Amino acid sequence: MQDTGTPTPPPLRVTLVQTKPKKADVAGNLAVIRDRWLKEIPDADIVVFPEASLTGYFLEGGVADVAVPVEEVAAGLGKPGPRAANVVLGFYERWQRGIYNSVACFEPDGDEYRAIHVHRKMFLPSYGVFEEARFADPGTELAAFDSRFGRMGMLVCEEMWHSLPATILALDGAELILVVSASPAREFREGLGRSENLARWDALAQGTAQEHGVFVGVCQLVGSEGGKVFLGGSIAVGPDGSILGRGPLMEEGLISADMSGKSIERARFESPLLADLRQMLPHLQRSLNRAGTGESRQAETQLAGGGSFRPTAQSPKPGVPVPALDMALIEKILVEFIREEVVRRRGFEGVVLGVSGGVDSAVSLYLAVEALGPENVTGFRMPYATSSPESLEHAGLVLSATGACAETIEITSAVDAYIRDVDPALSDLRRGNLAARIRGVTLFDQSAKLGRLPLGTGNKSERLLGYFT
Amino acid sequence: MQDTGTPTPPPLRVTLVQTKPKKADVAGNLAVIRDRWLKEIPDADIVVFPEASLTGYFLEGGVADVAVPVEEVAAGLGKPGPRAANVVLGFYERWQRGIYNSVACFEPDGDEYRAIHVHRKMFLPSYGVFEEARFADPGTELAAFDSRFGRMGMLVCEEMWHSLPATILALDGAELILVVSASPAREFREGLGRSENLARWDALAQGTAQEHGVFVGVCQLVGSEGGKVFLGGSIAVGPDGSILGRGPLMEEGLISADMSGKSIERARFESPLLADLRQMLPHLQRSLNRAGTGESRQAETQLAGGGSFRPTAQSPKPGVPVPALDMALIEKILVEFIREEVVRRRGFEGVVLGVSGGVDSAVSLYLAVEALGPENVTGFRMPYATSSPESLEHAGLVLSATGACAETIEITSAVDAYIRDVDPALSDLRRGNLAARIRGVTLFDQSAKLGRLPLGTGNKSERLLGYFT
Repeated sequence: MQDTGTPTPPPLRVTLVQTKPKKADVAGNLAVIRDRWLKEIPDADIVVFPEASLTGYFLEGGVADVAVPVEEVAAGLGKPGPRAANVVLGFYERWQRGIYNSVACFEPDGDEYRAIHVHRKMFLPSYGVFEEARFADPGTELAAFDSRFGRMGMLVCEEMWHSLPATILALDGAELILVVSASPAREFREGLGRSENLARWDALAQGTAQEHGVFVGVCQLVGSEGGKVFLGGSIAVGPDGSILGRGPLMEEGLISADMSGKSIERARFESPLLADLRQMLPHLQRSLNRAGTGESRQAETQLAGGGSFRPTAQSPKPGVPVPALDMALIEKILVEFIREEVVRRRGFEGVVLGVSGGVDSAVSLYLAVEALGPENVTGFRMPYATSSPESLEHAGLVLSATGACAETIEITSAVDAYIRDVDPALSDLRRGNLAARIRGVTLFDQSAKLGRLPLGTGNKSERLLGYFT
Repeated sequence: MQDTGTPTPPPLRVTLVQTKPKKADVAGNLAVIRDRWLKEIPDADIVVFPEASLTGYFLEGGVADVAVPVEEVAAGLGKPGPRAANVVLGFYERWQRGIYNSVACFEPDGDEYRAIHVHRKMFLPSYGVFEEARFADPGTELAAFDSRFGRMGMLVCEEMWHSLPATILALDGAELILVVSASPAREFREGLGRSENLARWDALAQGTAQEHGVFVGVCQLVGSEGGKVFLGGSIAVGPDGSILGRGPLMEEGLISADMSGKSIERARFESPLLADLRQMLPHLQRSLNRAGTGESRQAETQLAGGGSFRPTAQSPKPGVPVPALDMALIEKILVEFIREEVVRRRGFEGVVLGVSGGVDSAVSLYLAVEALGPENVTGFRMPYATSSPESLEHAGLVLSATGACAETIEITSAVDAYIRDVDPALSDLRRGNLAARIRGVTLFDQSAKLGRLPLGTGNKSERLLGYFT
């Protein structure tokens, strides 16, 4: 191979900034981006912020109040410095009388930033914990675009879980696909080192990069919103599928990756799938058009066996397997969740909680003490006359083991006064529920007295039943 | 949820049989399938055999001699038994004056098997070790099809490395995607437990299953062909991405997986990506059509940075990282490769090789002894007058350490006789090469004398240079 004398262009430096926006505070979050992050990162070509980075993700109907036109975001980024980077960020957008979950690329243009491309999320997840379609409108356009640093494409979160959008961007000439995301943590299998959804993000980003020979950057939101936790864990991936950088878990932070066009050429020489796809595309489109109409599915038959086999040792066992959990990671996330919700978001230093002597409240107590320190946790034993002495004793054991502040408040007088006045013939079931509710009343009152937030101790079965004691 | 009274249909049992076909022996391989495998598997609904299962994969121009019409394959399967399964197999097909790398599904129909669907491989890999496009014609059609066990689709190997074909099949109603494959082993990273290409197959099959909520079965070829090794390692994957079964490495074998339509319903309820895709498809097709024309790429710019950043500690290190290798796996594969090529394929029991005292021949010697036993390996020391005594000593050390049969043959007389007769003024370089070639002559002669195959000891640098000593 001869040296052709063409100078190699400098690599592109992309910085992914995983942020924890203040809820619904568009101006405040824009100010942090403008005055802190863009100043702290003097040497990037493109700086990327997550999905919904100006407001947080879970806003439900609130999106109508915080969605802004893209020009307002451009103005909020202020005046670009002399070597300012392009800025890519996700935000709820007000556009043509509708609301979109959008990502825009802003380029410095004299004294201002100008949006050179806006992509509006087409796939609005509305299942499981998601209900985007209730509050936003789906985009209907997808294309790559040219920037001063080359041709690229942008996607929002769920769109990467489908393989077709990234395929379209690659066919459209994108050499870099930037994904803004807000991916709630779920499933913590042992040995993974992170949650299952982040492991899946690795597979999606690496699969896309390898299939098309493109760079992929995934910028993840951080923080807890409405009980869901966004872990961060942004990644940058090279066109051969190698991980170029990985953001921290559960904290704001940034990763930078240098991307050279030469790596794309090398990856595509090794694996020319994209060129092969271009060649075969007209035929595939014919098949896709036919499949898309659903016509051939009129004769659809459902998957079913002939029923002639007898189950053998090789048969998969029935039932859903329960994988081993990564308890250390789960604990870390829960502790961080308590700190975030109690201290940072609500400005309290301590919590109060009931300690029954059972498992749920013991776990809550341990987590609270680890998160806030024993001096900031007050555990209340609230026995009723007929409570078992063992429960009281067990509660005492966990309280002294954790070193939390321990208080005991007898609720017998209050409960019995109600019974005497209202219904002396009340059943045992009603008496039990009454006692539980008086304990709740007591906790909220002590919360006000001590200036400490009440910490719930319900478990998931109770949550499913909608009934906590 | 009420019980609707509809009986649950029995699950579908799919058996993947990873075979090692005899090269180019269509009738023989069909006989093994008919008389051995189909009889050994009495309780499957569908039995799947790999890509090129009637001939082996690497045939180059030989495909023209072994490609057969699908009717001939159906006839070769013989008369179906009373509860015969459907048969899916990959083979080189003669069709409409062309040659295709095809996969067909055969269904019992009275006294014979009948092909109910043939898929002809569209993506013929022609890069790296592959050159399919030189010898076969590309198919241009892709569709799901109905069988007595439900609606399904078939793909051949490379087609799964693209995401679009499986997407089309899923949109076309396939609930099961059967992939026949011949995937040469490459890259053996430590900690993976198998080769990199098989790890990628996991990701591809799991990604496809999870994206579309379909079952995926990948049936892999086994054996070594022309120095490339097919490892086997077939997999069956459920619609939630779980691995239902995994075939052995480097040996023939089978895995069965039971597939229930209920699992598809559950997976699609948890993650309704396919329904979302159907809804958004017309818009994506518009984008795809535009991207496919390449029109917007006329203004394409190449990825490049502004060059304003200074490399920092965060910059990725230049150069290609060298991952740690899984040496145990590599050794296992090489030992199996020697057994396969020497004993099973060529019917020899032993090998002869030169032992120089250097690293390459020492490694070859150890591998040969492990594969064939020390009594079946003869190592020759072949010193020339000016050879270093140390080399001879080192060669002796590895020979006695392995317990191989050790022989010493002086080549000085032969070399010097040539020099004296032909060119007494010959240079040192020519003398060295002459000695090396006389060693080769000696080895091949000893091979004939002992009835043992010569084993090469070249290394990869020499292979790249095209010059072994």
